[in-house]
Amino acid sequence: MKTNCKKQETENKKQKLKNMTKSELIKKIRQKKSFLCIGLDSEYEKLPPHLLESDDPLFEFNKAIIDATIDLAVAYKPNLAFYECNGLKGWISLEKTISYLNMKTDSAFLIADAKRGDIGNTSRLYAKAFFEILDVDAITVAPYMGSDSVQPFLTYPDKWVILLALTSNKGATDFQYLKSEDHHLFEHILKTSSQWGTPDNMMYVVGATQAQQLESIRRIIPEHFLLVPGVGAQGGSLQEVARYGMTNDIGLLVNASRSIIFASSGEDFAEKAREEAGKMQGEMEGLIG
Amino acid sequence: MKTNCKKQETENKKQKLKNMTKSELIKKIRQKKSFLCIGLDSEYEKLPPHLLESDDPLFEFNKAIIDATIDLAVAYKPNLAFYECNGLKGWISLEKTISYLNMKTDSAFLIADAKRGDIGNTSRLYAKAFFEILDVDAITVAPYMGSDSVQPFLTYPDKWVILLALTSNKGATDFQYLKSEDHHLFEHILKTSSQWGTPDNMMYVVGATQAQQLESIRRIIPEHFLLVPGVGAQGGSLQEVARYGMTNDIGLLVNASRSIIFASSGEDFAEKAREEAGKMQGEMEGLIG
Repeated sequence: MKTNCKKQETENKKQKLKNMTKSELIKKIRQKKSFLCIGLDSEYEKLPPHLLESDDPLFEFNKAIIDATIDLAVAYKPNLAFYECNGLKGWISLEKTISYLNMKTDSAFLIADAKRGDIGNTSRLYAKAFFEILDVDAITVAPYMGSDSVQPFLTYPDKWVILLALTSNKGATDFQYLKSEDHHLFEHILKTSSQWGTPDNMMYVVGATQAQQLESIRRIIPEHFLLVPGVGAQGGSLQEVARYGMTNDIGLLVNASRSIIFASSGEDFAEKAREEAGKMQGEMEGLIG
Repeated sequence: MKTNCKKQETENKKQKLKNMTKSELIKKIRQKKSFLCIGLDSEYEKLPPHLLESDDPLFEFNKAIIDATIDLAVAYKPNLAFYECNGLKGWISLEKTISYLNMKTDSAFLIADAKRGDIGNTSRLYAKAFFEILDVDAITVAPYMGSDSVQPFLTYPDKWVILLALTSNKGATDFQYLKSEDHHLFEHILKTSSQWGTPDNMMYVVGATQAQQLESIRRIIPEHFLLVPGVGAQGGSLQEVARYGMTNDIGLLVNASRSIIFASSGEDFAEKAREEAGKMQGEMEGLIG
């Protein structure tokens, strides 16, 4: 048992050829005329039925989505929940997906949407899990526990922290807008945390549903990339996000998940995903200008 | 490969016999005269060398610690980072540890220290991962994303959310003490979130290093259990925590990790862990009175 699962793990994991620096990412965005990030929220229960007979339906689904969209997207973002909820099998599917993306010649920026964060001694091991074992470019991190919960992730050269600032969900209004000394909590988080790293190793999550805040956010962090979820199924507007959030270096990764990957539940799912991704890439090409 | 790893998973997972309600937990505390939670922060690099030859050193270590302390501790708390950083093997060790604890006749309250939290649709799948696949009693959750990031965990009968309120680390001072309308952020979180659940399905993390805040915290949440890390290696005082935090139902789970599980790195590690756990249990017996 031990030997087999060990062998499986070695097969799943292949070292990334090259890390994605800020200048590499910008180059990629300009080449592809796209700042699209595709969220691999690959919920098992929503997979096209014809895939369920395969050895690893989750991986086969992701592989087909990646193959169909790699020229249209600059980033992919598996959300860990969709893999953890399948236990051991889910972990294997995730490793294989990451390894597959890392081996693509036409590389993409790879984000583990994990929203981790713990005391320093523990965050150090999360950093190891995501940057050494899984070998992604970036991980989303929750800010509540402060500096020492984030800093261990920033010690890896050419790896990125994407810190939650203003999220796209309804619950964002519960605490993120609390005002202290004339600033909202998310503004305090932006100000304080932008001192922990640089625009070369930190990005921020700002939901597209909160686009009206982007002007004031850009005053605090004019150079950092933003990862913007909430366009698509959650209803945010790409035009609004670009108007208030775009910088000279673009400075945006706009994510769509369900609206692309589950555009069809039939055998044409990859083709339909490509169509949806193409629509967004086309719109982005217009915005990049 | 598929069949073997699938078989491994089935072997690892056994259904919990019984969930731990609040009254069960209080009964257990009074029986054992202890409110000790042992943190299974089982860092591979710190395991006693003689265990490294076994098939699954992490699990063997945890099993020995559990066997040596089960009459002294009412709760165990594996922190996910220490398992995720070992990839697939780590996930297997975690599953086996949880299953082993769930099968013990002398049951304990089992906390996955995972600090998860995401938009509602995603938290729903984290809840599935931890309450259905791993089958723990409780999960720690980060509060930043608000109500819909927490509520999916509260839909499981007799399962618990342990929400971060005031953490034990240095970074706790970065944002948790920000003042808004005369209340600190952590107080807003306590007030608002205590409406989402009840003292029967929610607890809060309050670090022992923040014991001076316990009086005001108890005014906001007089009945909720608190999970208190930071006694031991981090320097918090058990006496202080009990003075200001204890309720008629005890209302405390005080956690120690490294100071117990790594009390010795020799072949006597389990014996030494028992000694350290025994000291804390003795002190707790005095405090319960």
